[in-house]
Parts: sequence; structure tokens; C-alpha cells
Amino acid sequence: MSETMKAVVKVKEGKGAELKEVPIPTIKDNEVLVKVKATSICGTDVHIYTWDKWSASRIGKKNLPQTLGHEVAGEVVKVGKAVKRIKPGDYISAETHIFTFKDLTAQVGQLNLGDHMEILGVDRDGSFAEYIAIPENVCWKNEKSVPPEIASIQEPLGNAVYAVLGEDHDVTGKTVVLLGDGPIGLFATAFSKTAGFAKIFLVGLNDFSLQLGKKLGADYILKADEDIDRVKFVKDRTYGAGADIVVEMAGAPQAIKEGLQMVRKGGRFSAFGILKEGKIEIDYNDNFVFKGIQVHSISGRKIFDTWYRVRNLLSTGKLNIKPVITHLFKLEDFEKGFNEMLAFPRKCGKVVLFPDEKELEKAEKRMKN
Amino acid sequence: MSETMKAVVKVKEGKGAELKEVPIPTIKDNEVLVKVKATSICGTDVHIYTWDKWSASRIGKKNLPQTLGHEVAGEVVKVGKAVKRIKPGDYISAETHIFTFKDLTAQVGQLNLGDHMEILGVDRDGSFAEYIAIPENVCWKNEKSVPPEIASIQEPLGNAVYAVLGEDHDVTGKTVVLLGDGPIGLFATAFSKTAGFAKIFLVGLNDFSLQLGKKLGADYILKADEDIDRVKFVKDRTYGAGADIVVEMAGAPQAIKEGLQMVRKGGRFSAFGILKEGKIEIDYNDNFVFKGIQVHSISGRKIFDTWYRVRNLLSTGKLNIKPVITHLFKLEDFEKGFNEMLAFPRKCGKVVLFPDEKELEKAEKRMKN
Amino acid sequence: MSETMKAVVKVKEGKGAELKEVPIPTIKDNEVLVKVKATSICGTDVHIYTWDKWSASRIGKKNLPQTLGHEVAGEVVKVGKAVKRIKPGDYISAETHIFTFKDLTAQVGQLNLGDHMEILGVDRDGSFAEYIAIPENVCWKNEKSVPPEIASIQEPLGNAVYAVLGEDHDVTGKTVVLLGDGPIGLFATAFSKTAGFAKIFLVGLNDFSLQLGKKLGADYILKADEDIDRVKFVKDRTYGAGADIVVEMAGAPQAIKEGLQMVRKGGRFSAFGILKEGKIEIDYNDNFVFKGIQVHSISGRKIFDTWYRVRNLLSTGKLNIKPVITHLFKLEDFEKGFNEMLAFPRKCGKVVLFPDEKELEKAEKRMKN
Amino acid sequence: MSETMKAVVKVKEGKGAELKEVPIPTIKDNEVLVKVKATSICGTDVHIYTWDKWSASRIGKKNLPQTLGHEVAGEVVKVGKAVKRIKPGDYISAETHIFTFKDLTAQVGQLNLGDHMEILGVDRDGSFAEYIAIPENVCWKNEKSVPPEIASIQEPLGNAVYAVLGEDHDVTGKTVVLLGDGPIGLFATAFSKTAGFAKIFLVGLNDFSLQLGKKLGADYILKADEDIDRVKFVKDRTYGAGADIVVEMAGAPQAIKEGLQMVRKGGRFSAFGILKEGKIEIDYNDNFVFKGIQVHSISGRKIFDTWYRVRNLLSTGKLNIKPVITHLFKLEDFEKGFNEMLAFPRKCGKVVLFPDEKELEKAEKRMKN
Repeated sequence: MSETMKAVVKVKEGKGAELKEVPIPTIKDNEVLVKVKATSICGTDVHIYTWDKWSASRIGKKNLPQTLGHEVAGEVVKVGKAVKRIKPGDYISAETHIFTFKDLTAQVGQLNLGDHMEILGVDRDGSFAEYIAIPENVCWKNEKSVPPEIASIQEPLGNAVYAVLGEDHDVTGKTVVLLGDGPIGLFATAFSKTAGFAKIFLVGLNDFSLQLGKKLGADYILKADEDIDRVKFVKDRTYGAGADIVVEMAGAPQAIKEGLQMVRKGGRFSAFGILKEGKIEIDYNDNFVFKGIQVHSISGRKIFDTWYRVRNLLSTGKLNIKPVITHLFKLEDFEKGFNEMLAFPRKCGKVVLFPDEKELEKAEKRMKN
Repeated sequence: MSETMKAVVKVKEGKGAELKEVPIPTIKDNEVLVKVKATSICGTDVHIYTWDKWSASRIGKKNLPQTLGHEVAGEVVKVGKAVKRIKPGDYISAETHIFTFKDLTAQVGQLNLGDHMEILGVDRDGSFAEYIAIPENVCWKNEKSVPPEIASIQEPLGNAVYAVLGEDHDVTGKTVVLLGDGPIGLFATAFSKTAGFAKIFLVGLNDFSLQLGKKLGADYILKADEDIDRVKFVKDRTYGAGADIVVEMAGAPQAIKEGLQMVRKGGRFSAFGILKEGKIEIDYNDNFVFKGIQVHSISGRKIFDTWYRVRNLLSTGKLNIKPVITHLFKLEDFEKGFNEMLAFPRKCGKVVLFPDEKELEKAEKRMKN
Repeated sequence: MSETMKAVVKVKEGKGAELKEVPIPTIKDNEVLVKVKATSICGTDVHIYTWDKWSASRIGKKNLPQTLGHEVAGEVVKVGKAVKRIKPGDYISAETHIFTFKDLTAQVGQLNLGDHMEILGVDRDGSFAEYIAIPENVCWKNEKSVPPEIASIQEPLGNAVYAVLGEDHDVTGKTVVLLGDGPIGLFATAFSKTAGFAKIFLVGLNDFSLQLGKKLGADYILKADEDIDRVKFVKDRTYGAGADIVVEMAGAPQAIKEGLQMVRKGGRFSAFGILKEGKIEIDYNDNFVFKGIQVHSISGRKIFDTWYRVRNLLSTGKLNIKPVITHLFKLEDFEKGFNEMLAFPRKCGKVVLFPDEKELEKAEKRMKN
Repeated sequence: MSETMKAVVKVKEGKGAELKEVPIPTIKDNEVLVKVKATSICGTDVHIYTWDKWSASRIGKKNLPQTLGHEVAGEVVKVGKAVKRIKPGDYISAETHIFTFKDLTAQVGQLNLGDHMEILGVDRDGSFAEYIAIPENVCWKNEKSVPPEIASIQEPLGNAVYAVLGEDHDVTGKTVVLLGDGPIGLFATAFSKTAGFAKIFLVGLNDFSLQLGKKLGADYILKADEDIDRVKFVKDRTYGAGADIVVEMAGAPQAIKEGLQMVRKGGRFSAFGILKEGKIEIDYNDNFVFKGIQVHSISGRKIFDTWYRVRNLLSTGKLNIKPVITHLFKLEDFEKGFNEMLAFPRKCGKVVLFPDEKELEKAEKRMKN
């Protein structure tokens, strides 16, 4: 094993990132070293890449340089002294929320939340590299039958699964509106199909994504920028009551406002999307109190309840999210990936990077089948 | 039985109501006629009495005249032909939300919500009268051991109980912030004490009410108009995390904003209070998404799950809300009652009216014990 | 409308039933009269037909003669005076459990349970007839797009749906063992497929049914009378832990015993099947306490939460249970139907009867498509 | 720190244990060393002390000698290299179930269950000693205001709390039957009072305990060996329906059988007690299926949800279980403690041992107040 590796590093403030030769991470007693097989680009990476307001304040100058990325699949090559559950040779992915039992939230079972939590690729070096150090407690063992490009996107898929299931998992036979046609929205569409919703409405801006959503299981696709009454459209197909569940994944004021009108009295609204503006005016009386709805705010995934379901569904083929993966690049071509993600109208689903070209070739072959 | 009765009637638009001699209601096949023993004044009655924006649009000129009131305890004196469960002589109270299985919400078990629902005292004649007609399906049999002035306030007490329990009932051993020191806030305080919260924070504006709240079980009382950091106060006493549960019953923008900051990550916020303004700006990212909280919107009470608990707790003496009842009047003195409710600073808890002076005398005696 | 009709009547104790010409039912104020389009045979009907121990004690001589049947789809032709929600011309099915708010269970939202409940076709005349009288409160409006033979079997399908979903609905991405390959077991298989289970194990006795189960979505089929270690088989495919959920629909001691071993620690066991013996010895320490499992006992369906889901899934084609319907007969041929149900090995799924031959013809055509 | 300490050790098979001078435990990287301030005797310790069938097979000869005990409060004096959350000087208690994320149960959030779990004082040396080594992940920080004899019994108190709350926490305003008047039954009584049950029925065998239960909050006490109809007694006080919740903590066939009859249709039965016989015949049709009940099997406590509630309630004084502690001894007098626990009729609640006589003296003083 050489002592350096290539990595996509945020070197300085402002837009962009650089491919650098950096030391292979050393691991602490409770960490494992993972050889990255595939690592996919998340919206968070795009935020950091473009160095928007959020990333400037969340990460800041003093933490740079830092390696990007957190969606990953790879093989464990080394484990720290205190590591017990994970062994060299294990094929793993990583939960991004590095939980600690210092947090009251973790103590009461909400491992995905906490004030003392570190985030992979945000608070510490990430996965856009040949190797990454990962604390054992967030390692998740993959099924060997699931290829790296799929195993890598389990993390964002888990967001979608948690957002759709909410805190009560009560979905089968119900109706759902999915707001947002980015990768999470598409994952949510595929998962909603698997979960047995009776009617799936997908709302988005990109024809490419909406058509993909249609293939993945959306019963109705609606353009968010067309001059039609989307609320009425949904109510007309749900006994006039509105949808049982609305999942907001666009982080757009219009989506939130329409979504709160689309959900039926007594229904559930999942709040997952991040608003650029941060704040929004809510029709509190009419949309909350009088409607008797529940709002489930979704941060991360259930650790590891969501991972368990996702692994089960992927390894048995009951959930097929392969069509969402539209672009594969070698790590060096990361800028091509970011450009795809930043294009408008967007013509990509999920973009996956491969530090090892042989892994890329294998993935390309699988994609063709 | 004479053919007319006295009733407090909203005769015309604008502030006020009149004591009138009106016909005793005739009942439909599915209704019962109840001789009113006690009937208490709700905030909704105050809205209609003052004829504010909400009541002007909700009730409107065309439905006047209409008898006010919906919190009631009385004796059934007559039943319609189709009535099966209720018999003359039964001592009952009434659920205000007259549910119908036409509504999808009712079909799936949310009887408290629905588009086709009638509200007692809002959509039809109410209980500020000697007699009231009530559909059988919303009659609730009281325990004879519970006196009329207590039985009458089970309905608003039920609001408080549902708001505190939320949809998950998960309260014992947790911490709670109660925002609002009106009657519902005081009921919530007494109930939170019974439910075994470890710490109860009550926030309000009225010294009289807050002191009463202290007696009812609040561990900490906080003035909403004092220049202290209430959010910090709560966090300092909840491991820095914030309260497990926050219940908003003030319907005030400040309460909602502070409440969303007081609730811990992964906690629950009950939205019960009605905002005068209707709308409010929410810090969506920081208070919803990143915090992973749940919002439970509370409309009415669980039918009849809440009633069952309330009856159990009142009849066994496990919940004592008698101190919240501060004023008893004969029906003719209804204006005194409304004046108490409208005073600021408020010096009343719950005001109960009695169409029959003998019932008033008995209640006054019980209050002295 | 003539004044008499044909009906399959249990005339006297002992095996059998008779086709009789009887008066068309008169309806009470709260009832509707339904012209039966399709009515299917339930296991309960078989019990009454064979007059086993249960039916002899549950129904008894004094309630005879009584018309059999309770799974039904038909058109409302007349409504009682107090009926409000249902209208002539409505195409309905019926919930068999005629709930009343007299019961505490109904009051707290468990409409499917109660001491004062009447059962259609058990406590009062049933649906194996040209007409049936049904109380309005248990009428369920069907979608016109769902044909009578499918609409008729929503009631037992609802059993299967409730048994699989349990009280917590938490199923998608989990593993399930379905014990029993009768119609309910087959419905449960099809529904489990729709609900997105990762692995579905179906255990039964009949090759015909198990092969049908395979087509409906079972990932593994297991013969209950083969000399293999079924518990090990399940554990070997569920990380050694056992299945997340086990649903017992066979009512067989072996199934219960194996099922309690197949469910993983912390898993859920749905108890639906009725034991011939009534009682069974349980390994209380090892299978209950130390395992930390939950048992959900399943009686009937959620009223109307289950119906709502079932209607949604059937009308959208998301759930296809048509293959379970294997035999269609005219009402007069009811004995052929009972014979199919009583054969061993059984070679039928669900048997549907048609009082009107034209409806039978239409159904036969649909079956061929 | 000397290199040896006194400890109560199970040296060989058969009844009894010995006070021995043994080496102070060495700790692994992920463990902490705790100086024991108080340690209480559990039923499990009694099983091991008397070397009954269960302990002979569960522990066996090959694991002896082993130090007894697992209910503990003490001060951390040393921490392993990998320990992060706990520091020397921390005042802690210990969760007995040493969970590992190797277990699927732990992965999906059920930390109290698992096939790879070690039990303190059963699978490794326990707390009847001056020092004990404890893995960091099961350390729970106590409030300094809670004295050691109370902090020590949080573990069994947690059993009672979990058994009463079940998986759904839905208790306030409901009715409960508590079967068993041992320490867990008494804890459950005190907790049920705090949790706001409307009616608490306590059934037991010992006058001493039942009278104590009465003081702790039982509304009704019933002798299990008296010739009265206990099922009827409960039904007569619960609208004829039976109790909402029944908690079995006696591990007695009669209790299980009566308990299943005492619970109302749709109610919940918590299975906590261990049967001497292991197996029991259940009236499966009548008590499970037709009744629609839920059984929640209770093993351990929710980690750390139960601990969080218990700490909150003890530190605020909202739960007072001090009266259950009836005997304090120095560690050397452990045999006196075991004799109290083994006496019949039993005249003790909880017995606490103190390795340090000064701690004993302080505790005795507190008990007198």
C-alpha cells in the first residue's frame, strides 16, 4: 500500500475543488480504513463545491482543506484496535451521521439526531478519495450481491425511504404526493411503488426526471411550473379529501405551500427539503390546527432500521433503483459530475464516481444489462 | 313541560347576545332532548359573542338567530325513534364535533375531523338554554358521581388532554412546556401533573392564572412578557437539549416561535392555539427539518378515547380540575360571565352557567368544600 | 319486486343447508335493502354448513332457520327512514361486524371488537340470497370499476390485510412468514407482495394452493407436512435471526408452535387462525418473555381503515387477487361450492355464488381475460 | 488502591455463595472500573444463589467462580483507552444487557434484545464487590441528588416501567391490573400511580407487600390465594369490559390465566414474569384471537429510553420508590439479604448491600427521614 492517494479536496473558499495527492488517512482505535469502490455525489457535495451560504457558515475556512463526499461503498482494509464488529475484507457502506451516546437523542433511540454528532464529508474528510477512515459504529455491512454503485447510494436512498415511511411506517394502500424530482424524489418514487401506495403523484420541474419517475412507478406526473391547479388535481383523485401523505423533497416555498394544501385532514406531511430562504410563512390555522395534520421532520435515516430495510429490498431485487443512476465517471472526472448536477434543466439522476478504473468498467458493463 | 324556554341567543351581527324566550327544540329521529344542568363558556362562545372576523365569516348573518354554547351536562328527557344507545334519565355530556361516516377521516378512525361535520353551538343551536337537542352519536354518558359543573367542562378538558397526549400518548417521565395560561392551559397543567411528567413549565401572561397553574402542578411558571430568555431557561433544566414536548395553547406568534426553539431535537410540538393572524413565518430549516421534530395538530378531542380517559380520571378523583372553575352564574347573568372572560388581566379560570337556580346553589355549595 | 326470493337457508341442526323460497327481508329505519350481485363462501359458512361444535354452540337450534353468508357485493334498492349516508343505486359491500357505540371498544376506536356486536350471517340472516337487509353503519361503498366477484371478497381480503399489517403497519422492507394456504393465506401472500416485503415465506399443505401462492408473490413455499426443518429454513434466510413478522392463518397447533420459533427476537406474531382445539400449550418463557415479541390478535378488519386501503388497492389494480377466485357458481349450486371447500387436498381458492345468472355470465367472461 | 477486594462469589455448584478476597478487575480499552457504592439483590441473584435449574443450565459449572450481582450504583475510578463518554468521577449505574450492534435487534433499535448480548453478573463478574468492570456503552450517568441505594435499583425499576408502559406508552387515564407483589410489582404500583392510571388493581400473595402496595398507590389489593372471583372483581369496576392493561410480573400460571381473562377486548397484556414451568396452556381462541388483544413481551428495559424517564422521575421526586427498600446490609452480610428474599411469607421489599460501611451508615440515616 503506497502512502499517498488521490482525493477530491476542497482546498479554499469559493467555487470548485481540486484533485490532489494526499496522505492515506491514519485510523484511530475505533475506526476502520476503507478502500473506496464507488462514491456518489450528493446535493450536500454540490453545496460545498459551489461554496454557498450554508457551506461557508457550516464548514468555513478554518476547516479547509477537506476531502468531499460521504456516499460510499468499499472494502475494509484495516481496522483499529478497539474495533470488534467489522473485519478486514468486509464490504461496507457508511451512515453519514456519526452518532454518539453523549446525545440525549441517541440515548432515547434517535441515533440520527444529536448536538454532538459529526457528519462525514462535512465535519471530517470524506469519500471522494481512494481511501477513507470511518468510525466502526457507522459501518454498515452490505450484501455482496449488491454492486458498489448501488451500495453507494443506499445513504440517500435511505433519506427517501425514511421520508416516505415517516415515523409511523403507515403507507400501504394509501395515497402519496412526492414533491421534488431530484434523486431523492426519484428514489422516493421507486420506493413508494415497492411499498404499495395506491396512488403516487410526482411533482417536479424537469421533464427528464419526471419521465424517469413515471417509469419508476409514479401514477401521475405534474409539472411544478405549469399553470394548472395541482391541489385540485390531487383532490379530484383522492375522494376530494387530499392525499394521505405528502413528502416535500424540493425545498421550495411553492412545494411546501401546495403540499400543505394537498394533504388531507388528519394526514401526514414529511418535511425533508431544505429551503434556500430558511424561513417560510405557513397558513398555521388552516393548514395545521384545523386540519389536524402531523408533520414529520426528516433528518438523515433511521440508524439502522432504514438501512436494514434498504439492504433487504436491494439484495432481493424488490426495489430497483438502478435507472436513477445516469452517470458513471472516474474520480478524476469529478468536475463532469458536478456539472451534470448543476445543469438546468437537469438531465441526470444520480452521478457515481470510481477511484479505480477497473471498478468503473465493471459498473459500466452492469449498467448496460 | 312548557313549550318555551329561556336561551342566550345571538340575534344579530355585532357584539352581544340576548336572553330570549324561545321554543323548546323539537328533536329528529336520531336526536335526544337534554335538560341542561350546567353549561360553561368556551373561547369560541366569546368569539361569537364579540362577533370577531372568524365568527362573522364562519357563522354569518344568515344563520342568525342562533343559541350559543356547546359545553354541557344535563339529563336526557326525550329520545328520537331511531335512538338506541341513550335513554331518558341518562346523565350526559356532548362531543361538539358531530361526526358523520360520510367523511373519509371518520371512516379511517379520525372522528374528530371531517368536511361534513356540524359543530354544536356553531352550526346549530347550542347549550346556553334550558334544553338542547343533541344527535345520539355524540352523546357521552357521565358518571353520576361527577357534578354538572365538572361534567360540563369535560369537552375543553378533552382538548387539553388530547393536546398533551398528542397522537402517541408518550408522556410519562418526560418534560413538557405548556404555552398559554387560559382555561385550556390550566387544564393541561393539571392533566400533565396526573400524567407523570417529570418537569412541567407553564408560560403565560396572567399572574392569577400562573399562580393557579402553580397549585395545579406546574414546576416552573414563566411570564411571557418578561424580559428573560425563556428558551434558555427551559434548556438549562433539560440537559441543554430542550423539552421533550411543547404544547402551544396560546395562539400567539411569540409562543409558537419560542415553543419551536424550546422543543428538543426529535421532540414533539402540539399545535392547538388559533392565531389571530392566521399565518406565521416559521424557521423551517432550523426548527423543522434539521431538528427532526414532529408537529401534531390538535383539533377537538379523540372520539371517544379522550372522553373515556377523562371520565375515568374525574370519577376516580385522579384528576382534580375543580380549582380551574372560578365563577358560577345563573344563565340570566351570562353577560357577567362574558365580561370575566374578556377582562385583562384576566382573573378567571372557567365560567359555568346554570339555567336552573337550584343547580347553581348545589354547585356553589360543592365549590365551598 | 316480487315478495319472495330464493335463499340458502340453514333449516335445522346437522350438516347441510337448503335452497328455499323465503320472504324478501323488510328493513328497519336504519337499514338498507341490497340486491345481491355476488356472495362468496367463507370458512365460517362451512362451519355452519357442517354444523360443527362451534356453530352448534354459537348459533344453536333456536336461531334456525337462518340464511347463510356474509361476504357480499350488491346494489342498494331501498333505504330506511333514518338512513342518511347510503342511497338507492349505491354499489356496496358490507362489514360483517355490526358495531355499536354501546361497546367500550367501539368508543375507544376499536370498532371491530365488542360484546354487543351482531355478526352478519351468524346472528342474523345473511347474503346467500337474492336480497339482504344491512344496517347502514356497516355499508361500504365500492368503486364501480371493481366487479362484484372481487368486491364480494373484500371482507376476507380485509382479514388478511389486517393480519399482515397488524396494529403497527410496519412491513415494507421486512421479512414475513405466512402460515396457512387457505384463501386468507393466499390473500395475505398477494397483499404482502404489494406491501413490499423483502422475503415472503408461505407454509401450507396443498400443492395447488402453494403453487398459486408462488404466482401471487411468495418467494419461498414450504410444505407443512414435509420432514424438513422449516424453522431453520427461515432462519437461514433471515440473518439467523428469524422473520420480522409471522402471520398465523392456519389455526393449527404445529403452525403456532413453529411460527413462534420462526419469529425473530423483538418481532411480531399475528394470531388470526382459530384452533379446532381452542387451547394450546405455549413455551411462555422462551417464545414470549425472553424473545421480547409482540402478539397482535386479529379479529375482523379495521373499520373502515382496512376497507379504505383495500378499495384503493383494488380499484387502482395495485393488488390483484383475481387468481384466488377459482370457482363461480349460481346460487342454486351452492352445494358444489361447499364440496370444493371441504375437499382434501383442497383444489380451490375462493368460491363465489351468484343469485342472478346474468351476473354469473359476466363474471365468467371477466375471469377468462 | 490495593490490588485485591472483597466480593460475593459463586464458587461452586449448589446452594450458596462465599465472601472472598479476589483481585480487583482489570479493564479493557472499552471498559470503566467502578467503585461500588450500593448494589441490590435481584431475583436473578437468588436463582444463582440457590443454583436452580435455570442457573445451572444458563451459567453452569465451567463459568464458576463468578461474582454475583448486577444492580449497582458507584463512582468511576478508571477508564479504558477507548472510553470517550464516561470520565473518572462520574456517578453511574449500569444497564445489565451489554448490547452489541452485531445483533439485528440492536441494529433496528431494540438494544435490550440480542443473541450476542452478555448479561452483567450472569455472563461475567458482577457487582457484589468493591469494584466492578463495566463496558462504557452500558454506563448510565446518575443525578448526584439521587442517593446510591435508589440509584442502584433503577435497573429493576426500569423493568417495571417498561412492563407498565409496554411498547406504546399509552397509559394515562386507563385501568391496569398488576399481577405480582414482589419488588417489581411494587415498583410497577408506584410507577402506575405516577403515570396517572385511573384504577390500579394489585394482586399478590403477601400481606406485607400488598399493604405496601396500597401505600404506593394501588386502588384495590387482591389476595391471589383467596377464594374470590378476581376476574369478576376487576370487570365489575371496569364497565364490565375488563382492564385496559394487565401486567404479569408473578410468573405464575394462575396469574397468567386470570390476567388473560381480566384484560378487556382490544386491551394489552404485558408478559414479564418467568414461569418456573416454562410452558403454559393458553386459551388461544377465547383469550387471544376473539379478544383482539395485544401481548407485549418484556425483556429488560428500553436502552436508554426507560433510564431517561426513570432518572427524570427520581431526580424530581415525581416517583417515590423509597418505601420499597426495606433492608440495608453491609456486603459481608449478604446471606441475611438472601434469607429475607427467600422467606415465605416474604416480609421484605428490596434489599441493598453496601461494600463500604460508611455508605451504609449514610443510607440508614436517609431511610429514617
